[in-house]
Amino acid sequence: MKQVTVLSPATVANIVCGFDVLGLALNAPSDKLVMRLLDKREIRIINKDRFNLPTEPEKNVFGGALLAMMKEVKEEIGFEIESTKMIMPGSGIGSSAASAAGAVVAANHLLGNRFTNQELVQFATYGEQVASGSRHADNIAPCIYGGVTLIRSNDPLDIIPLNFPPLYVTVIHPQIEVKTSDARQILKKQILLKDAITQWANVAGLVTGFMKEDYNLIGRSLVDVLIEPVRSMLIPGFNEIKKACKEAGALGGGISGSGPSVFMLSKEEATAKAVELAMRSVYEKIGVDFHIHLTTVNPRGVEVVNS
Amino acid sequence: MKQVTVLSPATVANIVCGFDVLGLALNAPSDKLVMRLLDKREIRIINKDRFNLPTEPEKNVFGGALLAMMKEVKEEIGFEIESTKMIMPGSGIGSSAASAAGAVVAANHLLGNRFTNQELVQFATYGEQVASGSRHADNIAPCIYGGVTLIRSNDPLDIIPLNFPPLYVTVIHPQIEVKTSDARQILKKQILLKDAITQWANVAGLVTGFMKEDYNLIGRSLVDVLIEPVRSMLIPGFNEIKKACKEAGALGGGISGSGPSVFMLSKEEATAKAVELAMRSVYEKIGVDFHIHLTTVNPRGVEVVNS
Repeated sequence: MKQVTVLSPATVANIVCGFDVLGLALNAPSDKLVMRLLDKREIRIINKDRFNLPTEPEKNVFGGALLAMMKEVKEEIGFEIESTKMIMPGSGIGSSAASAAGAVVAANHLLGNRFTNQELVQFATYGEQVASGSRHADNIAPCIYGGVTLIRSNDPLDIIPLNFPPLYVTVIHPQIEVKTSDARQILKKQILLKDAITQWANVAGLVTGFMKEDYNLIGRSLVDVLIEPVRSMLIPGFNEIKKACKEAGALGGGISGSGPSVFMLSKEEATAKAVELAMRSVYEKIGVDFHIHLTTVNPRGVEVVNS
Repeated sequence: MKQVTVLSPATVANIVCGFDVLGLALNAPSDKLVMRLLDKREIRIINKDRFNLPTEPEKNVFGGALLAMMKEVKEEIGFEIESTKMIMPGSGIGSSAASAAGAVVAANHLLGNRFTNQELVQFATYGEQVASGSRHADNIAPCIYGGVTLIRSNDPLDIIPLNFPPLYVTVIHPQIEVKTSDARQILKKQILLKDAITQWANVAGLVTGFMKEDYNLIGRSLVDVLIEPVRSMLIPGFNEIKKACKEAGALGGGISGSGPSVFMLSKEEATAKAVELAMRSVYEKIGVDFHIHLTTVNPRGVEVVNS
């Protein structure tokens, strides 16, 4: 029986100012997924973790993505998935995107790599739709392409991989629940033109900072005048965390995706460790449970580790 | 008597999606300015062109910029300027910026280059204030730095020069008047978040296109969903011009600054010439007088040609 094992990474969507358009992949944590090719139209999901996610294909992120892909496959085939998720659902670092992206990359490998990365992103967004009701690609794109990605347009889909320098990422996940749909609902639909100008100036600065490998410019551009002021109210100790991390030497950072995880970028590993300590001490002081990850930007995206 | 001659180029602010933050310098037209150092606190302006601009320093763009600079100079000095403007005031290709930027670069040269480019931009914005009432730097920055510039922040001023590939620019100036203040007043102060997201996705795409020297990406990103739909109503035949230029092979383009000039970018000289013909035929058909320039992006900015 044809089989493949893939690792599918966590991702940080938005990257502070780039709401809905920028994202980056992390080297840890990542989900493991073993997939076997079946000779009939069926999707079987075996969860080997503690999250009790649904196994009916229509209610499952794997299923949503694979059913979209199978519409474009003429042969009589199906997939069995053994899933070991390490990325906690609801953490804000692309747990559902890792499932959807991992499934389509694994399936594409078993089918002889017939689809392009852009097509895989399209399929995987149907998995996101199962999880959150919307077909957004801002976690899917970096998860599949690796590195830092820009989604210039959703329709037609236009994904642009950016150059970037080595970056350390410290992510703290407070053990509270923030639903993506709630985090979206509290945003204002109308904004001031002058605030939007400030935002796209920083988006342009951040993209230029990545491309020029200019750490200082990356840091100066990690400013969000529109989304963070609203969403940060849902995250305990957000302002304290941010202040302590900047003082510890972080380039900058903010809410990962729609939260509740908070991420910080650093140039050096030693700084990223100091940032980790700073984050820990804030949450220990205010008594919030948390998980923490100290990692780097992952340039590869979903990868086949065994086939 | 110490003397210097500078050429100060026309500029295109905004570059379609980058409202208030992006700009580029042109190789033509450019203003010529001869400046002499005086040994008393005085600004003398001699206009050698047909535009009858005011010569009282407080009412003149040169004066506004130079008075701001002179506050930072302790010595008993002044400047005499012979100005030959080739960039028509009100054309939308940075006529006042060319005056202000040319004056401060020339004066800095006469004073032994004691100020940084960033300081010169600051001084020159006081010239813009005389012309339009606001201290914007989106024409000044490319005029002084040359090439393509991003203003990430106005306060503190943060100007970032971008890499860019060779580009041909065709500019048509219909002989109508659009006041910068009117062009600004018709803009909506409130916009939809979803439109702002589309805009910053394109700003990020355009910046990436310049940095990667990716002509196709530059073309795809030259989309403005916020400003152009409103301001283009002030420009006769705007939609026809744009359609004809795209059919002639232009990468894209739009309103230069607040208009009325319209510019188009092309990869090849032959395309830029076809674009020129397309522009001409639209305005000849609808009977609008115009001037036209076929030029390239100027990487040098204001330059000293004789000292």
